[in-house]
Amino acid sequence: MAVYTEVTDDALEAFLDLYAIGRMVAFRGIAEGVENSNYGLRTTEGDFILTLYERRVDPKDLPWFLGLMEHLAERGIPCPLPIRARDGQNLNPLAGRIAAITTFLPGVWPRRPTAAHCEELGEALAVLHREGQGYAPERANSLGPQAWAPLFGLSENRAGEVRDGLGEEIRQALDTVLDAWPRSLPRGHIHADLFPDNVFFLEGRISGLIDFYFAATDFLAYDVAVCLNAWCFEADYSFNITKSRALLRGYEQVRPLDAAERAALPVLCQGAAIRFLLTRLYDWLNTPEGALVTPKDPVAYWRRLRFHQGASSIADYGL
Amino acid sequence: MAVYTEVTDDALEAFLDLYAIGRMVAFRGIAEGVENSNYGLRTTEGDFILTLYERRVDPKDLPWFLGLMEHLAERGIPCPLPIRARDGQNLNPLAGRIAAITTFLPGVWPRRPTAAHCEELGEALAVLHREGQGYAPERANSLGPQAWAPLFGLSENRAGEVRDGLGEEIRQALDTVLDAWPRSLPRGHIHADLFPDNVFFLEGRISGLIDFYFAATDFLAYDVAVCLNAWCFEADYSFNITKSRALLRGYEQVRPLDAAERAALPVLCQGAAIRFLLTRLYDWLNTPEGALVTPKDPVAYWRRLRFHQGASSIADYGL
Repeated sequence: MAVYTEVTDDALEAFLDLYAIGRMVAFRGIAEGVENSNYGLRTTEGDFILTLYERRVDPKDLPWFLGLMEHLAERGIPCPLPIRARDGQNLNPLAGRIAAITTFLPGVWPRRPTAAHCEELGEALAVLHREGQGYAPERANSLGPQAWAPLFGLSENRAGEVRDGLGEEIRQALDTVLDAWPRSLPRGHIHADLFPDNVFFLEGRISGLIDFYFAATDFLAYDVAVCLNAWCFEADYSFNITKSRALLRGYEQVRPLDAAERAALPVLCQGAAIRFLLTRLYDWLNTPEGALVTPKDPVAYWRRLRFHQGASSIADYGL
Repeated sequence: MAVYTEVTDDALEAFLDLYAIGRMVAFRGIAEGVENSNYGLRTTEGDFILTLYERRVDPKDLPWFLGLMEHLAERGIPCPLPIRARDGQNLNPLAGRIAAITTFLPGVWPRRPTAAHCEELGEALAVLHREGQGYAPERANSLGPQAWAPLFGLSENRAGEVRDGLGEEIRQALDTVLDAWPRSLPRGHIHADLFPDNVFFLEGRISGLIDFYFAATDFLAYDVAVCLNAWCFEADYSFNITKSRALLRGYEQVRPLDAAERAALPVLCQGAAIRFLLTRLYDWLNTPEGALVTPKDPVAYWRRLRFHQGASSIADYGL
């Protein structure tokens, strides 16, 4: 939950004057989202989201993210469409930050995802991969495999504070995954963070895919592995193969995985678990006391990693 | 900023089925508000706020608060109107809490209140006092003067952690204020917490008064004193007499203060400063590490108290 940057009345008025979206009607902080400050903005023309980009987002990446969202929205993906100001810019300064206005998307994110949600999610992810192909610029995945060892280095000495022996376990898992990481798989633009709270549903169908600020150009099947981690484990860390099968079937209705992608799925899932384990571990060890955001428990991803280490083929994911 | 209680999809659906307000379109946590969990709820019929009442609100008081809001809304006060379920109830259980749905109010709360805002606020407060008169049930002010000594007792030993000698200073100020507290002044229903973030403006006019969960039956002029504390000090703790004069003039356009109220204003302002100083002091000393809400600095109200101690008459407030 997050509003890190307060916006004064005058600054907001001046900012809105840059856009041709009517006069302000309401402006409320949104609790969801941990990376940026988000406000619901209502004008006489409709509903929008105002985002102020905070420390974790590199301003140099913003044009790529917003360009991808615009590209996808124009192709029917229900993602936020960045609104251009009167001068054509979709990024403008506000309250000492860079800010953007995007369209508001209806729907509710699923607090308890079902297999039906997972099938819809799989299908939407494949459509996102397919429609992203025409967006020419690329962005290296700054949280991809080449980032994991340096990221781990920031926490390795203190990993044992979370769980005895965790540092050594991560070191071994990381070596194994990096050795086995595929050299080549179909590539494209991936969301890379498509957790349930980034997916809105309305009457059983997906109505919104949000938060593209980890998107990058990488193996498409790695995005599937992220979603398997994010959607198919229960609160007790058990793996729900019914949800996994539904997610994969939904994906393959639009874009069948090829033989190399299928063979790589267990290691891709291990890698995805490590990626979230490492960022959560870092946040867990480095969140200041009294912070607005409670860090998420890294152990949840260590448990997922253990599951994926025991998987030998895509059959362990239900296909 | 606050969403303390998560609501699952199924629980939300079942809850909404109790009401005749259409089908769900969107559901987002709201960052503002520190006492309760608030969600923006959009249905096919319009926009609403869903509030889950958290620990600080006594469930026994809720019917009184909602009754007052209904009474005021029916008389044109722009406050949230509690929506009644199909069975007539306006309070229903949800996710282990008591919850209510109210109407959504447009507007933006002023981050930097001006004298013009203060004049509007004063007028709206007087209208609220006038229109509240017909609401028969009373509620004792649980944070009124009789509560201050016990509340201070919870923090007295540790007040010096905030500022050297603060405990002794508060003790003396409290004794003085309680000795001088008026025995009798015009009474009625007061908001008792009408800070800028509880007041929405739209194009310069008040469009919403929210958060009635400290409302009580008490001296009307004490509510004016709360607002003078909340609206008329600058970030450097200096008192802005232009804003104060505007607030009082706005109020008196609707409901002139009588001679006893005018004479009591300095002590009422001291009492109001002590009330917020004491709750902030308690929260400051007792907020657990890593809490979602950062406690507000009690020193801001110690500084206000010092100003009011130097005031000898209503002239010091601009009238």
